[in-house]
Amino acid sequence: MFYREMKDHCGVFGYSSCDPAMTASMIYYGLFALQHRGQESCGIALENNGELQLVKKMGLVSQALGGENLGSMKGYRGIGHVRYSTAGTSCISDAQPLSAEVSKPYTDFISLAHNGNITNAGELRLQLKKEGMTFQTKADTEVILNLIARTQTGDLIRDLKEALSRLRGAFSLLILVKNRLIAVRDPHGVRPLVLGKKDDDWVVASETCALDIIRASFVREIAPGEIVVIENGNISCSNLDLPGPSRQCVFELIYFSRPDSFHFGTNVHMARKRMGQALAQSDKGLRADFVIAVPDSGIPAALGYSDASGIPYERGFTRNHYIGRSFIHPLQDQREMAVKVKLNPVFPVVNKRDLIVIDDSLVRGTTCRLIVKLLKDFGAKSVHLRFASPPVCFPCIYGIDTPDRNKLLAANYDIDGIKKFIGADSVAYLEIDKLRSCQECPDDFCYACFTGNYFDSV
Amino acid sequence: MFYREMKDHCGVFGYSSCDPAMTASMIYYGLFALQHRGQESCGIALENNGELQLVKKMGLVSQALGGENLGSMKGYRGIGHVRYSTAGTSCISDAQPLSAEVSKPYTDFISLAHNGNITNAGELRLQLKKEGMTFQTKADTEVILNLIARTQTGDLIRDLKEALSRLRGAFSLLILVKNRLIAVRDPHGVRPLVLGKKDDDWVVASETCALDIIRASFVREIAPGEIVVIENGNISCSNLDLPGPSRQCVFELIYFSRPDSFHFGTNVHMARKRMGQALAQSDKGLRADFVIAVPDSGIPAALGYSDASGIPYERGFTRNHYIGRSFIHPLQDQREMAVKVKLNPVFPVVNKRDLIVIDDSLVRGTTCRLIVKLLKDFGAKSVHLRFASPPVCFPCIYGIDTPDRNKLLAANYDIDGIKKFIGADSVAYLEIDKLRSCQECPDDFCYACFTGNYFDSV
Amino acid sequence: MFYREMKDHCGVFGYSSCDPAMTASMIYYGLFALQHRGQESCGIALENNGELQLVKKMGLVSQALGGENLGSMKGYRGIGHVRYSTAGTSCISDAQPLSAEVSKPYTDFISLAHNGNITNAGELRLQLKKEGMTFQTKADTEVILNLIARTQTGDLIRDLKEALSRLRGAFSLLILVKNRLIAVRDPHGVRPLVLGKKDDDWVVASETCALDIIRASFVREIAPGEIVVIENGNISCSNLDLPGPSRQCVFELIYFSRPDSFHFGTNVHMARKRMGQALAQSDKGLRADFVIAVPDSGIPAALGYSDASGIPYERGFTRNHYIGRSFIHPLQDQREMAVKVKLNPVFPVVNKRDLIVIDDSLVRGTTCRLIVKLLKDFGAKSVHLRFASPPVCFPCIYGIDTPDRNKLLAANYDIDGIKKFIGADSVAYLEIDKLRSCQECPDDFCYACFTGNYFDSV
Amino acid sequence: MFYREMKDHCGVFGYSSCDPAMTASMIYYGLFALQHRGQESCGIALENNGELQLVKKMGLVSQALGGENLGSMKGYRGIGHVRYSTAGTSCISDAQPLSAEVSKPYTDFISLAHNGNITNAGELRLQLKKEGMTFQTKADTEVILNLIARTQTGDLIRDLKEALSRLRGAFSLLILVKNRLIAVRDPHGVRPLVLGKKDDDWVVASETCALDIIRASFVREIAPGEIVVIENGNISCSNLDLPGPSRQCVFELIYFSRPDSFHFGTNVHMARKRMGQALAQSDKGLRADFVIAVPDSGIPAALGYSDASGIPYERGFTRNHYIGRSFIHPLQDQREMAVKVKLNPVFPVVNKRDLIVIDDSLVRGTTCRLIVKLLKDFGAKSVHLRFASPPVCFPCIYGIDTPDRNKLLAANYDIDGIKKFIGADSVAYLEIDKLRSCQECPDDFCYACFTGNYFDSV
Repeated sequence: MFYREMKDHCGVFGYSSCDPAMTASMIYYGLFALQHRGQESCGIALENNGELQLVKKMGLVSQALGGENLGSMKGYRGIGHVRYSTAGTSCISDAQPLSAEVSKPYTDFISLAHNGNITNAGELRLQLKKEGMTFQTKADTEVILNLIARTQTGDLIRDLKEALSRLRGAFSLLILVKNRLIAVRDPHGVRPLVLGKKDDDWVVASETCALDIIRASFVREIAPGEIVVIENGNISCSNLDLPGPSRQCVFELIYFSRPDSFHFGTNVHMARKRMGQALAQSDKGLRADFVIAVPDSGIPAALGYSDASGIPYERGFTRNHYIGRSFIHPLQDQREMAVKVKLNPVFPVVNKRDLIVIDDSLVRGTTCRLIVKLLKDFGAKSVHLRFASPPVCFPCIYGIDTPDRNKLLAANYDIDGIKKFIGADSVAYLEIDKLRSCQECPDDFCYACFTGNYFDSV
Repeated sequence: MFYREMKDHCGVFGYSSCDPAMTASMIYYGLFALQHRGQESCGIALENNGELQLVKKMGLVSQALGGENLGSMKGYRGIGHVRYSTAGTSCISDAQPLSAEVSKPYTDFISLAHNGNITNAGELRLQLKKEGMTFQTKADTEVILNLIARTQTGDLIRDLKEALSRLRGAFSLLILVKNRLIAVRDPHGVRPLVLGKKDDDWVVASETCALDIIRASFVREIAPGEIVVIENGNISCSNLDLPGPSRQCVFELIYFSRPDSFHFGTNVHMARKRMGQALAQSDKGLRADFVIAVPDSGIPAALGYSDASGIPYERGFTRNHYIGRSFIHPLQDQREMAVKVKLNPVFPVVNKRDLIVIDDSLVRGTTCRLIVKLLKDFGAKSVHLRFASPPVCFPCIYGIDTPDRNKLLAANYDIDGIKKFIGADSVAYLEIDKLRSCQECPDDFCYACFTGNYFDSV
Repeated sequence: MFYREMKDHCGVFGYSSCDPAMTASMIYYGLFALQHRGQESCGIALENNGELQLVKKMGLVSQALGGENLGSMKGYRGIGHVRYSTAGTSCISDAQPLSAEVSKPYTDFISLAHNGNITNAGELRLQLKKEGMTFQTKADTEVILNLIARTQTGDLIRDLKEALSRLRGAFSLLILVKNRLIAVRDPHGVRPLVLGKKDDDWVVASETCALDIIRASFVREIAPGEIVVIENGNISCSNLDLPGPSRQCVFELIYFSRPDSFHFGTNVHMARKRMGQALAQSDKGLRADFVIAVPDSGIPAALGYSDASGIPYERGFTRNHYIGRSFIHPLQDQREMAVKVKLNPVFPVVNKRDLIVIDDSLVRGTTCRLIVKLLKDFGAKSVHLRFASPPVCFPCIYGIDTPDRNKLLAANYDIDGIKKFIGADSVAYLEIDKLRSCQECPDDFCYACFTGNYFDSV
Repeated sequence: MFYREMKDHCGVFGYSSCDPAMTASMIYYGLFALQHRGQESCGIALENNGELQLVKKMGLVSQALGGENLGSMKGYRGIGHVRYSTAGTSCISDAQPLSAEVSKPYTDFISLAHNGNITNAGELRLQLKKEGMTFQTKADTEVILNLIARTQTGDLIRDLKEALSRLRGAFSLLILVKNRLIAVRDPHGVRPLVLGKKDDDWVVASETCALDIIRASFVREIAPGEIVVIENGNISCSNLDLPGPSRQCVFELIYFSRPDSFHFGTNVHMARKRMGQALAQSDKGLRADFVIAVPDSGIPAALGYSDASGIPYERGFTRNHYIGRSFIHPLQDQREMAVKVKLNPVFPVVNKRDLIVIDDSLVRGTTCRLIVKLLKDFGAKSVHLRFASPPVCFPCIYGIDTPDRNKLLAANYDIDGIKKFIGADSVAYLEIDKLRSCQECPDDFCYACFTGNYFDSV
């Protein structure tokens, strides 16, 4: 399911350093490792002795921030953000970290980096506007900012508990104030957030791949509902004191997170491999020459399928890595080129072969369809398409960029219709029960995009 | 005094149109004509049926907005802004128009374009932050915005009167809300603001040169303390009901405004010419071959001096028009190049001549000094430097970018010291009384940069 | 061996069309598919009724040419080129196609796109300069151009035969003249060149992947020493009449060509897989948990090794696809970051595992070394590094960008030294005999980079 | 006549330095001062110990070369070029200096910077192509380059004399070879070329304004037909030994050259002032309130007219200096905006006034027409348009960018038709005899654009 790699949500990264000259560079590397979580804009905010330095740019981390003179940014702590917006328009004013001057006993500013989606943001926004607050962006994050600013207990932790308890939905949130870096995860733990350590420095990040890149060690996941405050090189923990069974987003494991990351108690690559193994178990008796993957997100599941079925894994496609964010097609009427410029089948692997093709998930189905056609054009004898998750039938309201229901293939067609639309010899997917049984604690996850059971919809 | 041409304050332009497709283009042209008032950033906000469209960019109007698809921006009314900041740092987040969502009975948004400087902005800012308001920029304009948002009488005019009455200092302000475009000028009328008409459309602008470019006719100046509301093609006027003798900035006539503009009851070119004539009257008996100007701002006064003295006007310098905003000097140690790359004397006009050289004003004196040296290097027999205004001895607190007192030459040296620093054969300037007598209503002006008498300092 | 992916030689693509409006777009797609053969510059030349249209740009095809208005370029035939220079400096004037006005009975211009390296270019260049010819570039291609221009038999084919017979070394050459598109391959057939057909249009390209992208069918390889002339939709063939046993570059199969391409009588993916299988046969008895590849060029051989050894293939690394051509490292002293920003091990695949790691070839050894260290840092129990080709001990003089001998690891160390430098538990490579036995016609290949036996050095 | 300021020909600058680190910077400043002679592209070539360094860019000098690391370019001598092409298309490959490798006893390379137009370039080009020479650009300069390369006497001066004697038309040429910098001017001296000295360094430039900017002193003009060789800090002179009465381009004095420059035996500003004075003498009895100029090229003549007529000079227009090279008009149907965005009348100078308006020359007449309309719209009582030169009736074949005859207003209309087209109350121009009598040696000039008498057309 390679097309959505450019459509994602957000990644956050925070760093508390003993050496103020290193902070910006560490955040730069961390954001680079989280680039798959957002490619539209990126930003870094540093705090040093109560003063805030901020840089935000449109574009990829290496291009947008690599040219910046990060060496001139100094600060003992800072936060960073990569973004693809699912709520709000795409312009620099909506880029994060979002920062503002405030007047609090404990800080003169607040800077926020947020991953997730607040389901009652509209309602809170209206309330705040009626109190005379102004909103300069479309982002949920500004609701959080203004809520914190308007909550005036005089104490940071009490302000946060009071303000954040009014939020519904998903938030993995980094907060930078004077002398302190705070990480908070919503009571359901929808989005990942991990804690790391590099010598005497502390790191918080959306995924562990951002710890690896700077050789920080993985300490533990921030717990759902937990507030971690990093100050003077020490950490202290408290809790939002809110109800909330864990509802970790299973789609992070299926598609969004990087395979080398660890969170929700597992390694992502291994989780996907288990899904592929489970998929193979439903397919007992299906014979084929090769198992191949839709690159890259289908690869771990394909390896798992091959492992469980004994059918050899092969590399069915060559991927063109030079395709940028906005490949221009000079000829308007060549929609099929969209797939062909990115993938090309390897003829002897495909021609006259029976193939099992593994994709990570079924959303719109438009790309699968082109891929099946491509394999048939290269002489595949049969193409058995397998999805390593149940079909997506409901839009996500917690921060994943799924389309409207009318564009979700499985919300509009039954399995036969799907098969006909896609043109494969057979189509199957991982049943929801099997998906659950791949997880150690299946009840801790949100499956709403498959089932429609939104956890806080009431 | 050509160096400061890149250092200015702001220009504003508003347009209420019968044809929503024309509004953005009209504002684009208007801002282009006001470019001399600010070259750092520019922006346009349009309103159409309650929805706001906004574009803000760093850079010059023609480069930053010319490439924008203005044709796709539609709206019956809009405002624009060009900016060089005298308060606040230089980045896109401080660019204007500044816009925010609010919840008012009469509008869901406010967009502001402001020219001037609020002298009690810091105090108001702190008060608002203590009430829980957040500030995302350093601009005075955000204080105005938040003040209006927090004032909740339920009526636009009453909100404005109440909010704006708390401001001290200078503001020529354009306000865009649902269905209405409002122009307000502070009670002292420090900065210019004019009203124009093009067929059935209304225009408000900092200067009349912005009316000329779109062939709008000049209706009148907005009066000090006046509120003009444009709605449904009609205008209605009211007043801030605040005391305030007129204190129009005389430096607008001396240097900032464009010579073709009309405001403060006069044409700027003619005002400067009168200053040159007055200057010549003090110089009776001084003989010279030519009167020449420091281009371009000294030209009108030089023509006036020539007219009153009978000494022929000549063009002493060729100006290189290809010098951009950031000419790069490959050799570090060539400070004098800074003037030489811009101006070159015309040898036969200068060599072996007695010259009267007219500059508009004396601020730092560093450029004059290089110019005198240049003329001497080209063989000028004598150089008599004349300033068509009194020497600047005090910083401006109302929005003109004058440097600190310790950099103001005349605040630190007497006339002999100035002459020695500059290296001219003689130096003289227009006395404050003469400057006053050049104006029809001399008491209506602020002369604080010459006298230190700030009108609202108590 | 992923670092050299940015260091390559050239790719060529020619198209003869029935519809002049399609030619430029077809070349654009073809060059995009050949992007791996050169990322520095690209260009397209079209001919229509004797007039030449030319566009050349620095940068990647999709960025450099995608923004061009290719729709305005028309021509019944054209050639394109992507380039990484191994001879000549990197600037736009050396980009190809190289075009010139000439005065020939059969054409007024010549445009050339060349892949390969002319070993006697310097000598020919001097001779031509002594005749008064001028050279505006450093490229070998200009030698070919001037040779053809100076050869004046009056007939195209005779001019080509006479001029090209003076060349030594490697050339796969496309020539565009009035009404004709010509493809020539040197007598040794060092670089690939294939012929394709799309409906009534003819295509010539460095690799078949460029046929696939435009859905052209593969007709055959252009033979060593063959001249193919395409005119009026027909093709005619002749020969350079030069001696020359086939000396196809085996490194094209090992590393340079795309796995989905077919040339030198084989599919590249399958050739690499055979090398991996052969490698495994030498390793009988070696036990490990997984076979993993250095992505991406090591993958086919790793699949072959896994297949022959029965040890499961796994994906040991996650690759960050967002790394651009010039990733900027803010901290100077972090050389190891160079690998870490690109690759990250998948912990459960690596930790406490015995691993066989397959790379395509051993050149400098600096990257392998960092990769072995990375795997050890992630807790690999043992790392057995295997190269699917013999170690490179001699620089290529036919167009592959190998470094000087003193930088070739195996030219300076024996196997123990190599093992120590790289830090692996064991190191082995595919012996030259085994490599030969993987080929159907082993004598048709050049192995000079392994053996030092340059075929035309005498 | 301000519109053509973007349409010019070329400027050249050469520098022979004692300090190789200064050469590139000196050329950069020199080219910047010559920017009015060409705004399309610019370039610098340096020679140091037989090695050539070259940088060429599209765009203005300060933008294109200011960002280059000129400090890293070293060489004892170098040449530079600014270009607007009148022969050849506008792309980087036609930018100059044009450089090539050759094989001469005295040099291994030639680099050329050329101002002028070779009238027999086509014929020479064909001849050279028939000898097997190739042409990679459309520029006349390549003809000169190839001619020199093909001339093989073994001696630099003899090669130059033989090669250059075959050229017809205009050339002010700088040649860089090993250890020597050569300046040559065609036998008619059509384009200017001056020699300067800065301490022990030598300078050659199109105009003296390029000497002034680097504080070099003016030595003398290079004579028509003269060859000046600069070597080891010494200069030696010889001659092309070709017939050729001086035919200096009078249009350089009228419009192209900068007013502060000296050449053709005069200062340009003073030459223009004399033309204005002569114009006034024909207008005896004409009364008006003011003499105003079409800025900027009309200003010196307007000062001269004012001086001779006694009618006061005024500044009738304010010019917007922020208009760049490609001002974008969002509304397509507003052609008149083209003038309005650049110039705005000063109302009290124009309204109800009788005006004499001075322009430098009459070419197309389209801009004058808009200017007259603009003044009338601002209430001018009468507008008497005066051109300080005869009307242009014939295209220039020596390097000035005049349009085709059918676009030259005076080639198609008599004086009444011109007056009607332009809409002025009266129109007059400087008669050819008067123009001649303004020059000290009137026979030394080319007046072909006024008379059609091309000096070498036979």
